Amino acid sequence: MRTVNVQLGERSYPIYIGEGLLQQAGSYLEKHQLSKQSPLLIVTDEKVADPYLGILEQSLTASGFKVVTAIVGSGETSKSLSVFEAVMTKAIEGGLDRKSAVIALGGGVVGDLAGFVAGTYMRGIRFVQMPTTVLAHDSSVGGKVAINHPLAKNMIGVFHQPELVLYDLSTLKTLPAREVYAGLAEMVKHGLIWDREFAYWCLEHAEELKSVDMQAMGYGLEKGCSIKAAVVSKDERENDLRAILNLGHTIGHAIEAVAGYGEIIHGEAISIGMVGSALIGEALGAEPGLVDTTREMLQSLGLPTVLPEHLSVDRIMTAMMHDKKFLEGQMTFVVPLEIGKVEINRNVDYDLVRRTVELLKKEV
Amino acid sequence: MRTVNVQLGERSYPIYIGEGLLQQAGSYLEKHQLSKQSPLLIVTDEKVADPYLGILEQSLTASGFKVVTAIVGSGETSKSLSVFEAVMTKAIEGGLDRKSAVIALGGGVVGDLAGFVAGTYMRGIRFVQMPTTVLAHDSSVGGKVAINHPLAKNMIGVFHQPELVLYDLSTLKTLPAREVYAGLAEMVKHGLIWDREFAYWCLEHAEELKSVDMQAMGYGLEKGCSIKAAVVSKDERENDLRAILNLGHTIGHAIEAVAGYGEIIHGEAISIGMVGSALIGEALGAEPGLVDTTREMLQSLGLPTVLPEHLSVDRIMTAMMHDKKFLEGQMTFVVPLEIGKVEINRNVDYDLVRRTVELLKKEV
Ligand SMILES: NC(=O)c1ccc[n+]([C@@H]2O[C@H](COP(=O)([O-])OP(=O)(O)OC[C@H]3O[C@@H](n4cnc5c(N)ncnc54)[C@H](O)[C@@H]3O)[C@@H](O)[C@H]2O)c1
Ligand SMILES: NC(=O)c1ccc[n+]([C@@H]2O[C@H](COP(=O)([O-])OP(=O)(O)OC[C@H]3O[C@@H](n4cnc5c(N)ncnc54)[C@H](O)[C@@H]3O)[C@@H](O)[C@H]2O)c1
Ligand SMILES: [Zn+2]
Ligand SMILES: [Zn+2]
Repeated sequence: MRTVNVQLGERSYPIYIGEGLLQQAGSYLEKHQLSKQSPLLIVTDEKVADPYLGILEQSLTASGFKVVTAIVGSGETSKSLSVFEAVMTKAIEGGLDRKSAVIALGGGVVGDLAGFVAGTYMRGIRFVQMPTTVLAHDSSVGGKVAINHPLAKNMIGVFHQPELVLYDLSTLKTLPAREVYAGLAEMVKHGLIWDREFAYWCLEHAEELKSVDMQAMGYGLEKGCSIKAAVVSKDERENDLRAILNLGHTIGHAIEAVAGYGEIIHGEAISIGMVGSALIGEALGAEPGLVDTTREMLQSLGLPTVLPEHLSVDRIMTAMMHDKKFLEGQMTFVVPLEIGKVEINRNVDYDLVRRTVELLKKEV
Repeated sequence: MRTVNVQLGERSYPIYIGEGLLQQAGSYLEKHQLSKQSPLLIVTDEKVADPYLGILEQSLTASGFKVVTAIVGSGETSKSLSVFEAVMTKAIEGGLDRKSAVIALGGGVVGDLAGFVAGTYMRGIRFVQMPTTVLAHDSSVGGKVAINHPLAKNMIGVFHQPELVLYDLSTLKTLPAREVYAGLAEMVKHGLIWDREFAYWCLEHAEELKSVDMQAMGYGLEKGCSIKAAVVSKDERENDLRAILNLGHTIGHAIEAVAGYGEIIHGEAISIGMVGSALIGEALGAEPGLVDTTREMLQSLGLPTVLPEHLSVDRIMTAMMHDKKFLEGQMTFVVPLEIGKVEINRNVDYDLVRRTVELLKKEV
């Protein structure tokens, strides 16, 4: 069992990473003194409920906890106000009170939705994350929880830190390969922004990671969580440093928006975006070979590095402008200096960005 | 001009109370360094917009602020998820960003709704309150913001402190008398729980308060805000002390629920509830004459002290049980010991509460 401690003063919390943790959920919640009088609400999605909800419920009720559940549809559409209201209804009907907790059993979607419920039910009750995707190692650190507005993703949210995170590696065995790879994009991102050695470790252990080898996956998630935790501890409320976590995300979000959500999933879009960032980095004088190494790392993890031909460069540029980060032809970007090191550059030229997006369409 | 400072460490803020402050809103926001680049969103209701929105907009734009507005319907129904979504849409379409602020121009309804928008837009942006009701002196201190779930009032919310509160007394001149009196119920409540002298001052100045004399109203609101601020500063997150602010509210909420929201408004319901608390206090050995004095104070402020005959005692008791505060026939109540002093009593007998509700129907 591995433990990462997220240091945030009195809001600090541990992430437990290991196999078979769901079976022991009851004793972990006991250890963290969650209430046995006040009901717990488990929020999960239909794909996760089938294999794992029973295991979790059994462990909790065996330990004497009272449990209510809300099962939502799988996928991004569950991060809506109407699903939020439905989960709130379950919480009220289930009799949750100020001492209750909300448990997110699932990926980033369930984590964000359940976290926003926990953050706003009676103005905030306790929250526990039980991630079941690789990508959720990212969302389990930082306390950002949110739902979508029809006009903009993650627009409605709060900061709400969990009491603990219980990461049962065994659940990753049923995760579709494409989702595994997408999660690895965020994992290697943590290496690319902060830890050169870890980035190369991901490359060397790419096959084990892709096949969800428990040993490699455990280490990779521990490292990924630790790096994010280190960044977030220094900057809880996203002022400056925390922005480096957005490596590849400006271009990535624009790709997602233009492709239509779902065609290219988040991890894939930021993979292409990180190649874009590397191209910008090299153009501005970063370490030679940066682009090739970045591409190799991403490809080895099963990720796309080329922008599909049919996505219009114009529309991608327009989508980026919507992010309102252009000021007088200049744009703010997280730009790599070398593998493992980035800087925030507020003066990236519009034309350089446009040329970069064009270059992303070239097969290499 | 009067100023109350709400002391909450780095979240401290001032409440400015005076006549004609809306005309000077621009310079107050300048003084508090709100952004002139990022648009402000004014949230107000249709009844308040008519006389006051123009004045506020003019002052802000004259100072160089960019302004967007959202006008919602008057009354409690605007504290819904659908109105919340509509206001969020205005915020997004208006281009609000992380440096923007939301301004609540109105009573407690607008304050709670706009505050919840500010607390959740992009995970929290700045918030300014401009109260236009007497009752809103209560909601302008404490940082509680919330909307309603169809099954329960104020169920969905966060704590979000304003940057400043600008209380323009002149706006109270158009407030209907019934709303003025209802607000005075919370004002005298602050005396009853904390400050004997102030409670008697309200009785002595009842006529001036009811007719919205600027001098008396200014002093009363200053005192009311100060007392709430003192309580909240000691207990920001409602653990123990803060509960004394609920004097009269347990019975009051039950009366509101049974009467159907609207027939008896909040301030009227807690007025009857405070007589109930005084009756419980006397039964448990409080200062002699407590009930009579409490009744006299409330009646002098134009408030009801008798429970309408047609409201069923059974249904009121059931509504109280829904609050989940009964534990084995015992209930937690804020109980007066004397005028200006209360205690939290966790062992109030179910039967005593029931007898009290029955007594509340008796005209005296
Ligand atoms: N809060 C944050 O800091 C943060 C950070 C990154 C991403 N996010 C959010 O996370 C979301 C994406 O997360 P995600 O990729 O985990 O998506 P997800 O939760 O939708 O999971 C992906 C898919 O895998 C399924 N699934 C999950 N676990 C499974 C398992 N063990 N076995 C089989 N199927 C399983 C889900 O039903 C879904 O179909 C986005 O909404 C994004 O905004 C949040
Ligand atoms: N957040 C808190 O701490 C807190 C505390 C107490 C009450 N509240 C909330 O406050 C709400 C009640 O507040 P309220 O009584 O101010 O209600 P309100 O905002 O509905 O105002 C009462 C009525 O007066 C009208 N009005 C407001 N200002 C006016 C003016 N200057 N001239 C003419 N008409 C005017 C409104 O349109 C409305 O019809 C409730 O929803 C309650 O839950 C919150
Ligand atoms: Zn991401
Ligand atoms: Zn009240």
